Amino acid sequence: MTLAEPVAAQAPLVQRLLDGLAAIGADPPGITREAYGRGENEAQALAAAAGAALGLAATTDAGANLSLRWAGRDPAAPPVLIGSHLDSVVQGGNFDGAAGVVAGLAAIAALQAAGLRPRCDIEVLALRCEEAVWFGLGLIGSRCLPARLPPGALDLRHARSGKTLAESISARGGDPTRLRQGTPLRDPARLGAYLEVHIEQAPQLVEAGAPVAICLANPGNVRHPFIRIAGEDAHTGLPHRFRRDAALAGADLMLALERLWLEEEAAGRPMVVTIGRFHTPAERHSLTMVSGRFELSLDLRAYSADHLAALEARLAAIVAEVAARRGVRIDLGERSAAAPGPMDPAIIEGLAAAAAQAGLPGQRLNSPGSHDANNFAASGVPTGMLLVRNRNGSHNPDEAMETGDLMAAIAVLVHWLAARTA
Amino acid sequence: MTLAEPVAAQAPLVQRLLDGLAAIGADPPGITREAYGRGENEAQALAAAAGAALGLAATTDAGANLSLRWAGRDPAAPPVLIGSHLDSVVQGGNFDGAAGVVAGLAAIAALQAAGLRPRCDIEVLALRCEEAVWFGLGLIGSRCLPARLPPGALDLRHARSGKTLAESISARGGDPTRLRQGTPLRDPARLGAYLEVHIEQAPQLVEAGAPVAICLANPGNVRHPFIRIAGEDAHTGLPHRFRRDAALAGADLMLALERLWLEEEAAGRPMVVTIGRFHTPAERHSLTMVSGRFELSLDLRAYSADHLAALEARLAAIVAEVAARRGVRIDLGERSAAAPGPMDPAIIEGLAAAAAQAGLPGQRLNSPGSHDANNFAASGVPTGMLLVRNRNGSHNPDEAMETGDLMAAIAVLVHWLAARTA
Repeated sequence: MTLAEPVAAQAPLVQRLLDGLAAIGADPPGITREAYGRGENEAQALAAAAGAALGLAATTDAGANLSLRWAGRDPAAPPVLIGSHLDSVVQGGNFDGAAGVVAGLAAIAALQAAGLRPRCDIEVLALRCEEAVWFGLGLIGSRCLPARLPPGALDLRHARSGKTLAESISARGGDPTRLRQGTPLRDPARLGAYLEVHIEQAPQLVEAGAPVAICLANPGNVRHPFIRIAGEDAHTGLPHRFRRDAALAGADLMLALERLWLEEEAAGRPMVVTIGRFHTPAERHSLTMVSGRFELSLDLRAYSADHLAALEARLAAIVAEVAARRGVRIDLGERSAAAPGPMDPAIIEGLAAAAAQAGLPGQRLNSPGSHDANNFAASGVPTGMLLVRNRNGSHNPDEAMETGDLMAAIAVLVHWLAARTA
Repeated sequence: MTLAEPVAAQAPLVQRLLDGLAAIGADPPGITREAYGRGENEAQALAAAAGAALGLAATTDAGANLSLRWAGRDPAAPPVLIGSHLDSVVQGGNFDGAAGVVAGLAAIAALQAAGLRPRCDIEVLALRCEEAVWFGLGLIGSRCLPARLPPGALDLRHARSGKTLAESISARGGDPTRLRQGTPLRDPARLGAYLEVHIEQAPQLVEAGAPVAICLANPGNVRHPFIRIAGEDAHTGLPHRFRRDAALAGADLMLALERLWLEEEAAGRPMVVTIGRFHTPAERHSLTMVSGRFELSLDLRAYSADHLAALEARLAAIVAEVAARRGVRIDLGERSAAAPGPMDPAIIEGLAAAAAQAGLPGQRLNSPGSHDANNFAASGVPTGMLLVRNRNGSHNPDEAMETGDLMAAIAVLVHWLAARTA
């Protein structure tokens, strides 16, 4: 049986859904689909209508996530979930998240067009509020399913509406009281697999000339949002040997972390260092003063818990060395951490076989970003991801995925589902 | 003839003047004597009263600077000026500037007590507005004498009063119309010498255990107050090879300039690099964004025009290298420059002989800061400076000069004046 034709036949559906989502989110020059707001809601309604046309059963869970279920032949078989999110950042692009929901719907349509019926249920999940901009906390919808909301999350306030997360969920038909119980909405042990299609948030596939890649792992992170360096303010007349320049210590720290990054990558241990804030305090700026204060933020990413732990030890050593050499104090301040999301080896191999069947290269890639898939992987659900070629990164209006590349990802997904649910 | 006793006898006068100046400027925890404001004015009045007690003739010039003149035996002999300033920064210390005016008055009192009368006039100059905080331009009073005010200076506005410099000078009895003519108030060719006593603005004399040093030169500078680096904003997911991180380019630039500084010092070419502002733009701060923008200020100092020119060439080469390697644009922006102020060799030797006569070490030192002396040196007036030991730098409330160290400087000054005006 060939699946190429039924997949290709979904191109108009895919384009119609992408165009519909773009119209809903239109906020020139970009796309805004506010979580728990009008944009995300209308996008859920669009997905629900497409699901209804495919005969899928729609339900909303306690987190106000939408599930569109195609019943399988064996009600006892653990379901396969195809998920992603429909919200966006403010004036971002159309594809970050939404492309994955479209891919799930189109995959079911293709399997139906091929005359197949899966053994287990296949559910398309339209998850709520993946972007951290809305509540200062990301991946919210996918945290709800395996009960991974951190303490206090339901009391966070929405950046635009000012409503708490509990109020926002309640207003969209969810049940915050159920979420406060802290038990999973879906038992991870009874989920067969979680699959997510997502645009790549870096131009590695553009560089490689490949439309789609199989994700090996999503990064975990260690973050220090408020690192403070204290040296001593001084007049420009102070000779070098007396100076305790906090900005120079900041430059040392930043470049030492960059060297660490490049050494680790060269040794085959992928990681990322990002320093978003890096500054002398604005209220003390003077052309002729040596700055005794400096501040920065640090986001360290890696793909295994062991690697992250080793990097934290290296960070501590670098901080101690710079502080001693520059005569400054470096306070790393508040720390937060997120576990890496390794993909399931059997799913990686299954997706590779599916790519081969679809006649596509089966390139394997670490995801540059974290995704809803992290919450399923961290909860023990066998998890896989497909990354779609995307120019210009994400979280900006210039995000650029070609529909043809999404069709390639859908082809891999359809071949994998056909085999997985045979 | 011994001058030790008449010098020592001035200690009460010196302490009384310093205490009076501190009372005028009291602004806990520091001292504020606003230029063209109450503090500077009352300090001028205190100096004028002390001058009157010594029989000195008070006059005010077109820049509202105060001159206190002791007439010499030969009215045709070019006068020796002993000058410094009476203004301070906001909540600075008591001695930056004012100690030099006190030294001039005490030196005349000591010469009178020794029964000497100089051949040429000796004038104590209490100069206006040396600190750059008041108009964003420093050394204003001393610029007036040799007509070295830059274009537009008279239209600058005072940071507190909001009045223009012209209005401020006029309100204090000066004559901005005369200043606008652009001709010197005093013909530099008819000034015999300019001597200035000033606290050291670094702890080099504390380190050396010496109360006073003979200045070799004041630094000139090249400044770029608004350097801008433009790379590309990016999500934390962007791999290193694609990044054009403006903050990392800033760190490279800063550390390259520090290496240049240390190499030059090691090669016996003293200089200073100060980067006062050094920051990602506050309005773009995000934990997970690579910053495509960075800003810094640069103040480069050296003691000869040739050296400054060579350093500017090195700066250009460093900027080009960093920009190419990081894939960013670096715009040095606005440039300002001030000429170095080399001290007169004959005065340096004269002060060394005077120190030997006073039984003091004649250590020679480059001044860490620029001073009113720069304007006289740059105008061809034979210029000399004595630097007084000072703990904790200047421009802060902890500035700490011992009166005994100022007395040592006065002893050198008196011996030099006795020989110079014999």
